[in-house]
Amino acid sequence: MTLDNTWFTEAQVASGAAFSMKIKGKLHDEQTPYQHIQIYDTETFGKLMVIDGCIMLTDRDNFIYHEMMSHPALFTHPGPRSVVIIGGGDCGTMREVLKHPGVEQAWQIEIDERVTRLAEKYFPQLCDANNDPRAHFYFGDGVKWMDEAEAESVDIIIVDSTDPIGPAEGLFAEPFYRCCHRALAKGGILVQQSESPLYHLDLLQRMRASMRAAGFTSLQTLHYPQCVYPSGWWSATLAGKNCAVNKFREKEAGSPGFDTLFYTADVHKGAMALPAFAKRVLEK
Amino acid sequence: MTLDNTWFTEAQVASGAAFSMKIKGKLHDEQTPYQHIQIYDTETFGKLMVIDGCIMLTDRDNFIYHEMMSHPALFTHPGPRSVVIIGGGDCGTMREVLKHPGVEQAWQIEIDERVTRLAEKYFPQLCDANNDPRAHFYFGDGVKWMDEAEAESVDIIIVDSTDPIGPAEGLFAEPFYRCCHRALAKGGILVQQSESPLYHLDLLQRMRASMRAAGFTSLQTLHYPQCVYPSGWWSATLAGKNCAVNKFREKEAGSPGFDTLFYTADVHKGAMALPAFAKRVLEK
Repeated sequence: MTLDNTWFTEAQVASGAAFSMKIKGKLHDEQTPYQHIQIYDTETFGKLMVIDGCIMLTDRDNFIYHEMMSHPALFTHPGPRSVVIIGGGDCGTMREVLKHPGVEQAWQIEIDERVTRLAEKYFPQLCDANNDPRAHFYFGDGVKWMDEAEAESVDIIIVDSTDPIGPAEGLFAEPFYRCCHRALAKGGILVQQSESPLYHLDLLQRMRASMRAAGFTSLQTLHYPQCVYPSGWWSATLAGKNCAVNKFREKEAGSPGFDTLFYTADVHKGAMALPAFAKRVLEK
Repeated sequence: MTLDNTWFTEAQVASGAAFSMKIKGKLHDEQTPYQHIQIYDTETFGKLMVIDGCIMLTDRDNFIYHEMMSHPALFTHPGPRSVVIIGGGDCGTMREVLKHPGVEQAWQIEIDERVTRLAEKYFPQLCDANNDPRAHFYFGDGVKWMDEAEAESVDIIIVDSTDPIGPAEGLFAEPFYRCCHRALAKGGILVQQSESPLYHLDLLQRMRASMRAAGFTSLQTLHYPQCVYPSGWWSATLAGKNCAVNKFREKEAGSPGFDTLFYTADVHKGAMALPAFAKRVLEK
């Protein structure tokens, strides 16, 4: 069948696939200095944010991504106090990070302030923690910010960015990883969204090679379902500065003292178990 | 964007979503006594089989489904010798089952012979094992076959069917599960594809309740990515007859003596770790 104009479609042309959602209407459409942002109301996914034609998040399934971008890294570090989120303009990662009571400050460095302002309006539940006194917001270039960050000042860096095409391209490159490595305290962890294990294994391989070249001694890719992203299957890669990122504080993760919808200690372990084909390529 | 007629689209109307693949052309189109079968050649997924408008399998990603429908159950049973596949007309599950050298006979009970004949033509690699002397094929009604099966004669029943609408409806109901329970030897295992954890949690809940009502004492739902199925995230549910299906032969699974693309012992464990929201509903 063909879909009429009551559907929003993201065609992933290089992957030869497309994902569509039935929409009730468009709520917002804006060209910012950086990108084209659209907000839709969908039939079954709640609100939908689209940037430059790519699905960023929906009410229905963003919990998976936001939990898997934050809790694995925070439960791997022995006691994270200072967290920096590069990108993450929808504030959902910030919300998850601040569920950890030991975090003393979390910075969100988003290049496009409009993403955050629109999240406040259309995804208010993701912005729950924005008034937490530990939450800090800076709107500007994440690469530059990280380049100028004080050495050994950060425990966790979360790169919650768009795909490696457009404004986020520099976030998938060795020079940026070197800046992250320098800014991380000993035992610090970088975690970055690392695309689809099915479609983008070559990108994952290059990212991991660049992270190693930048000085990270331990890597761990986690995989998880993400319905609205290409292939419905996504990943995050953890990189440790003089620490092992394939072990975590299982006991605390098992009784975190806060609610999650996706993350559990067993889910964390399960996400580390790469499928045979990916393990052969990434962990050889 | 809208997709022109160079795309095949499956709209999952109740879920308000659709998945599309770019196609090169249609290779076959046939109305059988049971259903409408189409075969396409795609740009990036290889061959594609569609039944009644629903994507059944592609060359690119069927390995995940077929491995997860077979190896977890076969490595949970202490020594399966007799396996029955209900449905499974594309023969991919048969192929995985016969990788286990201890299996003495495997029966495939597919209602529509045309599915198998078309698989032989368009998905020959899935039919690799069809000439194995242990492989047996019967084309007829799986519900009736199971109703007439000798009591306690089967170690593993794999229900590899289409969705619970149309010909497969009876395969998701308690009377069928009772027949399976009766046909299984002590310690026998039923495993059934159980739809999307994101879209169909209510169905999963009902299936599990029906399995329990039919006498199965231990249940385990496994989840895994499946790009071309609704939500890109799928599941299989194991049901044990007087045996625990949340433990498996980890050592043998870790060195199976045959190749897999998805399955590993760690992947098996990981697939058992249900996300928090699903665990709360299914394992309460």
